[in-house]
Amino acid sequence: MRLVNGRHSAALDASDRGLHYGDGLFETMAVVDGRIPLWDRHLQRLREGCRRLGFDCPDEAVLAAEAEQLTADRPRCILKLIVTRGPGGLYRPPPNPQPTRVLERRPWTEYPARYWDTGIEVRMCRTRLAWGSPVAGLKHLNRLEQVQARREWLEPEPVEGLMCDSLGRVVEGTMTNLFILEGRSLITPPVDACGVAGVMRHFVLDLADDVGLAVQEGEVDEKRLLGADALFLTNAVIGLWPVRRIGSKAYAVPDVLVDLRRELERTIGSRP
Amino acid sequence: MRLVNGRHSAALDASDRGLHYGDGLFETMAVVDGRIPLWDRHLQRLREGCRRLGFDCPDEAVLAAEAEQLTADRPRCILKLIVTRGPGGLYRPPPNPQPTRVLERRPWTEYPARYWDTGIEVRMCRTRLAWGSPVAGLKHLNRLEQVQARREWLEPEPVEGLMCDSLGRVVEGTMTNLFILEGRSLITPPVDACGVAGVMRHFVLDLADDVGLAVQEGEVDEKRLLGADALFLTNAVIGLWPVRRIGSKAYAVPDVLVDLRRELERTIGSRP
Repeated sequence: MRLVNGRHSAALDASDRGLHYGDGLFETMAVVDGRIPLWDRHLQRLREGCRRLGFDCPDEAVLAAEAEQLTADRPRCILKLIVTRGPGGLYRPPPNPQPTRVLERRPWTEYPARYWDTGIEVRMCRTRLAWGSPVAGLKHLNRLEQVQARREWLEPEPVEGLMCDSLGRVVEGTMTNLFILEGRSLITPPVDACGVAGVMRHFVLDLADDVGLAVQEGEVDEKRLLGADALFLTNAVIGLWPVRRIGSKAYAVPDVLVDLRRELERTIGSRP
Repeated sequence: MRLVNGRHSAALDASDRGLHYGDGLFETMAVVDGRIPLWDRHLQRLREGCRRLGFDCPDEAVLAAEAEQLTADRPRCILKLIVTRGPGGLYRPPPNPQPTRVLERRPWTEYPARYWDTGIEVRMCRTRLAWGSPVAGLKHLNRLEQVQARREWLEPEPVEGLMCDSLGRVVEGTMTNLFILEGRSLITPPVDACGVAGVMRHFVLDLADDVGLAVQEGEVDEKRLLGADALFLTNAVIGLWPVRRIGSKAYAVPDVLVDLRRELERTIGSRP
């Protein structure tokens, strides 16, 4: 089920800059009990992305109405919203871009409950994130790095892989952000040179104080990663998954992570 | 005029990975006197790109027949070929991808003759190329860096801007590769950490010896750029443009560059 510029359609104009240049942004949103708990945060990031790319963000009321249309009879699902700069132009965009919006409904992704309770196994990807990207932090449509990383393994588990930047620092998972726990401090890698500023990452940054955790951005190399007391991964669909293992290194799931996950689910009103 | 998987169409499946992830490649090809002089080189690069991205390259005979169909009554034009991994999947591609091909005919781009004869003015872009890309060298569909760079100026001239990588080295233009001349030596920046391995770049690397120039890849910082005896830019549509000016720095167009350009045009059979 998909709306292209508000109309039920399976087709996109083949001159769209989303295809030609990846010139656009996307949001992957969890629909829980018929609502999108992080709607405001998704819209805020989308607006910021449009500002940095230099085109007008579609009207929020229009986006909300279209989301409601697709979720009215589907209280539990995933919405993927793509917004591109629209058709035309070369690298230089047309002077008056007409942005394209594609809103797509996907089935809810079922994962085993143990992913939340006892944590997941993750692997280290060989594919690196290029360092110093002028579009770092944005959830843009240039995602070949993630595709190449995710192609490194075919098995269903590990369910996620961690990616380093080209200078060797651990940045994020292919579809998640990373937090490490050191004592009562949470650290998450900066996303100003590569990586995605996830909405759930931001939500956890705001929430950590409520469970008595200090939190800050900080660089994480593999030594720091392996020396951490605990790790977890976040995104808007899964919420928070603890990491129980990377290769031969096992991690505990301390009580404070359970508290944080419960606080997160309480605030959102569900899992995630 | 456009063929999508061989059929006249303006539309693309909105689930295509070219839109969602920029998961594909493209070639921009000059059609001269009804032929594509660099066809073999374009196809070679496309096949290499498909190999690195891990999906089957469309059959060359099919691509050639479609190119002929679009150029039969248009002996002078530009063909843009896009090949994506096709629809479906998440970051992890579907197990049996069905690649999509989009072949688009565009009018020949008319530039002033002085661009070839006395050279062009170029600017230095503020937008940087992220360093250490796992898809460096490929002409892939993740082109936001070039879009952001090309958005830095609105005037028709300068017609091109040079981009540095995030470590400060000069790499290429937004739509061209860069060569610098030092005495009788040509140097072009490597494209193994960012940048595009242009087909015309490769052609010039092969041709330089014929006009008595040594040629090699080498790192170029701004000091080396400004100290060079001459500069020129290449791509498959323009061939070779000398650079006459960057900001307040003026460059000559030495005879050997004129020789090189003539040799290039002679080999191709036309300009470019």
